[in-house]
Amino acid sequence: MYELSLIGIGTGNPDHVTFQGARAIREADLILIPRKGENKADLAGLREEIIAQVTETPPRIAYFDIPRRRSDDGYLRGVDEWHDAIAVRWQEAIASHPEATQVALLIWGDPSLYDSSLRIASRLNPQPKTRVIPGITALQALTAAHAIPINDIGAPYLVTTGRRIREEGWPENLGKVAVMLDGECSFQSLDMGDYDIWWGAYVGMKEEILISGPLGDVAEEIVETRTRARADHGWIMDIYLLKKRGI
Amino acid sequence: MYELSLIGIGTGNPDHVTFQGARAIREADLILIPRKGENKADLAGLREEIIAQVTETPPRIAYFDIPRRRSDDGYLRGVDEWHDAIAVRWQEAIASHPEATQVALLIWGDPSLYDSSLRIASRLNPQPKTRVIPGITALQALTAAHAIPINDIGAPYLVTTGRRIREEGWPENLGKVAVMLDGECSFQSLDMGDYDIWWGAYVGMKEEILISGPLGDVAEEIVETRTRARADHGWIMDIYLLKKRGI
Ligand SMILES: C[S@@+](CC[C@H](N)C(=O)[O-])C[C@H]1O[C@@H](n2cnc3c(N)ncnc32)[C@H](O)[C@@H]1O
Ligand SMILES: C[S@@+](CC[C@H](N)C(=O)[O-])C[C@H]1O[C@@H](n2cnc3c(N)ncnc32)[C@H](O)[C@@H]1O
Repeated sequence: MYELSLIGIGTGNPDHVTFQGARAIREADLILIPRKGENKADLAGLREEIIAQVTETPPRIAYFDIPRRRSDDGYLRGVDEWHDAIAVRWQEAIASHPEATQVALLIWGDPSLYDSSLRIASRLNPQPKTRVIPGITALQALTAAHAIPINDIGAPYLVTTGRRIREEGWPENLGKVAVMLDGECSFQSLDMGDYDIWWGAYVGMKEEILISGPLGDVAEEIVETRTRARADHGWIMDIYLLKKRGI
Repeated sequence: MYELSLIGIGTGNPDHVTFQGARAIREADLILIPRKGENKADLAGLREEIIAQVTETPPRIAYFDIPRRRSDDGYLRGVDEWHDAIAVRWQEAIASHPEATQVALLIWGDPSLYDSSLRIASRLNPQPKTRVIPGITALQALTAAHAIPINDIGAPYLVTTGRRIREEGWPENLGKVAVMLDGECSFQSLDMGDYDIWWGAYVGMKEEILISGPLGDVAEEIVETRTRARADHGWIMDIYLLKKRGI
């Protein structure tokens, strides 16, 4: 039986890796790496680069293909089946290395945040002991790049998705909301005169782009910059923090 | 003129430090370290340990005293004056090392999260260029220790304080809330039958204590454990994630 480590590696900057993460990589005797990601960011060789950075005797690597996601019959149901399918790939990759006792996956950002690896791991059979090693999230890379706090003093903040902002609007009585997983610049659905935004794409990476200001003033620039960058690179990941004025 | 680096160091585990943080420590020629913290955790020598771990030629260290906080005349006003007073101490410590061009502070967790260092830095005069290096937060140390995601699939979560939970109750329509800065086990003010909790004290540290389960079943155990641990160690820091069932 093996132990499974989900190692947070940060958001594209190999120097986001923690000492704890580096040690867990060195202790692994098998690392699973996805061959085809949801987007090209996964293809960038970052994981290989990180492994090479922390050890001169890299552990064995098993590549696996990420199955396509069927999103046609209901959002949650599609996700569930997709996780089942990925779990099968993990299981196969691990089964082909029966000698491995320390299996690891390098997880983008932190394994706790909008990431499916814990849910996939819970589908493995038999169930391995699973440990999580925290990593720098896109949210932290964003606030660090802008050199801003995420919360107002003593005040709460919400983390949500583009879809929720579009479908449910701004949550009542809240001053700060961070938005992830937004393919559509959903801030445009808000009453833009009332907000400030701190936006970032490819945060922490050498491609990093940052824009901030009153939402009404910079929204168009963000939409255009995003479209252009996405076309140039073939993929994009972006994230932003919004503040509603006067709360 | 100097550059100021606010370096997130994680929440008590020296291995939370990132490669980026380690490099920034090595590049510093002056590090400011608080002598008297708000609580004994700051006294634990962790910062010296981290510096020694990443470099054999430690930069100069300037210790400064954290002034007492006056909380008698209004919460926010007290905080404001306290930040002013800390900025004066930073300014004095830096002024006594006029040769320093790279000044750094080692910030508990991540500088963006319920931390005043960015606000204090903005009071320095003249205003140095300030860069932020993200670090593992208590929230991530908590979710990693319990090996749980922070969000339900595609769903939002709120991060808030004990005071807010006590004064405002559970935020409507939300499934997941993380609570920090809670000296009073404020979960007791909720209708405890409706929630699950993942609680942790000293997360990431060797003293780590974890309790989880249906809130009604474990609340008493948490309160008692917290009281005992606080008495044993002389200080405590705890944090928890709550899930409201059926949302
Ligand atoms: C599936 S979630 C994974 C989040 C990751 N586990 C973390 O801790 O940041 C992907 C979303 O994270 C955000 N994201 C991840 N990396 C990013 C980066 N380098 N720059 C901007 N946004 C990023 C984007 O909002 C993207 O839609
Ligand atoms: C002033 S805030 C600082 C948070 C820090 N900047 C971070 O990123 O985690 C202090 C609060 O963080 C939480 N905290 C910090 N370190 C912790 C630890 N090791 N274990 C449990 N909670 C911790 C507690 O809720 C505490 O009241």
